[in-house]
Amino acid sequence: MKKLINNVDYIVEEMLNGMVVAYPSYIRKLEEGNILVRKNSPIKDKVALVSGGGSGHEPAHGGFVGGGMLDAAVAGAVFTSPTPDQVYEGIKAVAGDKGVLLIIKNYSGDVMNFEMAKDMAEAEGIEVDYVVVNDDVAVENSTYTTGRRGIAGTIFVHKIAGALAEKGADLGEVKRIGEKVIENVRSMGMALTPCIVPAAGKPTFTLEENEMEIGMGIHGEPGTHKESLKSADEVTEHLVSKILEDMKLQKGDEVAIMVNGLGSTPLMELFIVNNKVDKILKEKEIKIYKTFVGEYMTSLEMAGCSVTLLKLDEELKELLDAPADTPAFKSI
Amino acid sequence: MKKLINNVDYIVEEMLNGMVVAYPSYIRKLEEGNILVRKNSPIKDKVALVSGGGSGHEPAHGGFVGGGMLDAAVAGAVFTSPTPDQVYEGIKAVAGDKGVLLIIKNYSGDVMNFEMAKDMAEAEGIEVDYVVVNDDVAVENSTYTTGRRGIAGTIFVHKIAGALAEKGADLGEVKRIGEKVIENVRSMGMALTPCIVPAAGKPTFTLEENEMEIGMGIHGEPGTHKESLKSADEVTEHLVSKILEDMKLQKGDEVAIMVNGLGSTPLMELFIVNNKVDKILKEKEIKIYKTFVGEYMTSLEMAGCSVTLLKLDEELKELLDAPADTPAFKSI
Repeated sequence: MKKLINNVDYIVEEMLNGMVVAYPSYIRKLEEGNILVRKNSPIKDKVALVSGGGSGHEPAHGGFVGGGMLDAAVAGAVFTSPTPDQVYEGIKAVAGDKGVLLIIKNYSGDVMNFEMAKDMAEAEGIEVDYVVVNDDVAVENSTYTTGRRGIAGTIFVHKIAGALAEKGADLGEVKRIGEKVIENVRSMGMALTPCIVPAAGKPTFTLEENEMEIGMGIHGEPGTHKESLKSADEVTEHLVSKILEDMKLQKGDEVAIMVNGLGSTPLMELFIVNNKVDKILKEKEIKIYKTFVGEYMTSLEMAGCSVTLLKLDEELKELLDAPADTPAFKSI
Repeated sequence: MKKLINNVDYIVEEMLNGMVVAYPSYIRKLEEGNILVRKNSPIKDKVALVSGGGSGHEPAHGGFVGGGMLDAAVAGAVFTSPTPDQVYEGIKAVAGDKGVLLIIKNYSGDVMNFEMAKDMAEAEGIEVDYVVVNDDVAVENSTYTTGRRGIAGTIFVHKIAGALAEKGADLGEVKRIGEKVIENVRSMGMALTPCIVPAAGKPTFTLEENEMEIGMGIHGEPGTHKESLKSADEVTEHLVSKILEDMKLQKGDEVAIMVNGLGSTPLMELFIVNNKVDKILKEKEIKIYKTFVGEYMTSLEMAGCSVTLLKLDEELKELLDAPADTPAFKSI
């Protein structure tokens, strides 16, 4: 295992400290619980957005704490759900007068622990609601999931719900727009290599030198199948066709694209994938409104990528374009 | 070799196409020569900044074309200098009335080809000057270099010279500030794994499972030495102490930090490195003005990082903070 780390027991804490000293004008860390919150939180007259999950997906979610996106990101151990207590502390730290929306990726542990935290916060008189993101079309149910998994499409929920919260909308409205994004966003990924969880010291799954995994999850959960290496164009064609089967887009529909690197995929390769996504959509006369290429929801040093499409309407476009100023996502 | 690519002969062209369709509001690609230019170039009353070099260092340099940074990025083949003709075409496409500044990383091929392009453009009546970035303190002279190599510190030259050009300064002033950044910026890197140039199909160098390379270049050029794996804190201590030996910072001096991932290093590890950089500088009572953590100057899928320190004064701080709006660097 070749990693730039110190003691595996303090890996998450040291990472979060490294983030806070890098971005002191954006975020601060609560004294306990590995929770990053917006510098100026709680904000009295704004719905607070709380997300998080296991660590190892950086910049998700701490990198998206800031103006126009999240108010708090709760960091569990690597690939491990945060505890209900942690999430509860995050909620308490950022709750203003307009309540709190939890944005949960659909993993059984995350859903259970965020729901328990909601109950704890409500017992203290804090209004809390939540949405569950399940954008991954690869498989129904999976190692840690009932239903579809939540992956990179989550970033669009942070961005768009965050923009509406920033405008002063109430909790019901912010939840409505979060669910609207979830209804319209679909993703699928593939891996060339697995990753190594530091505490485990061995790869999450194995792949032969000429093999790739299609549809795996961001914790290395099995996908639809393994197959021999194909060209970037063939891989992209497969991912996009699976997404489109599920989305049923029409000619003239508008979408946002996210080509997301899983950790060790060079930007060069992500742009080659995007080149093909663009061609496929243009052939189908689907309009591309905005494109994001980079690392948004990673899986440590896994090689591979996911493609996400978000179907847009005027409301979603306006909120996607609204200003955001966070360490990992800036919209000018 | 596991890569998301198609034909190795068209890898750079497909990548650049993938960038242009991702960011059509920022950049366009000239019809020939693998050159990205600012959408609205040439800008009549602004010094134009032209950079570039071999591909494989993305987001450098095409990702930094846009408001407040570069006007053109000329892309050679992977790890190969662009030709004089290519650079000349880039210069011609963006030159306004105030001349052109070339920002060259110090590699013999780059320096020679950019200088020849300068001569060709001057013969056409375009005023051209240049700066050569040599921030890497690891070694004097190297495989492709006379003198020190230019690495991630180049991004600070793009940012700060770009900001002054955007304010309307003349060519002499923009060159002066570029040289001021170069005098005040120092970097050093390390690698846990090499990378594979697609056309070669084999790693640029070899490392044992328990070994790392200290001070190697961004094309896999040899560094100062190989040694057995150390903790992130020990590695960081070594890189920063080599930089500080050369910079001779005093108590109370202010710096900007860049912790740059070389390709497959998880953000988690880069933040752990930054946590230690922060501690070392605070112990020495050096003030940290601003920190950048992420992938700015990569080496395909090499694992490892570089640390860059830029000593600041009021002029450099103001220009570092000035607005920039490019695909890979946004300053709000």
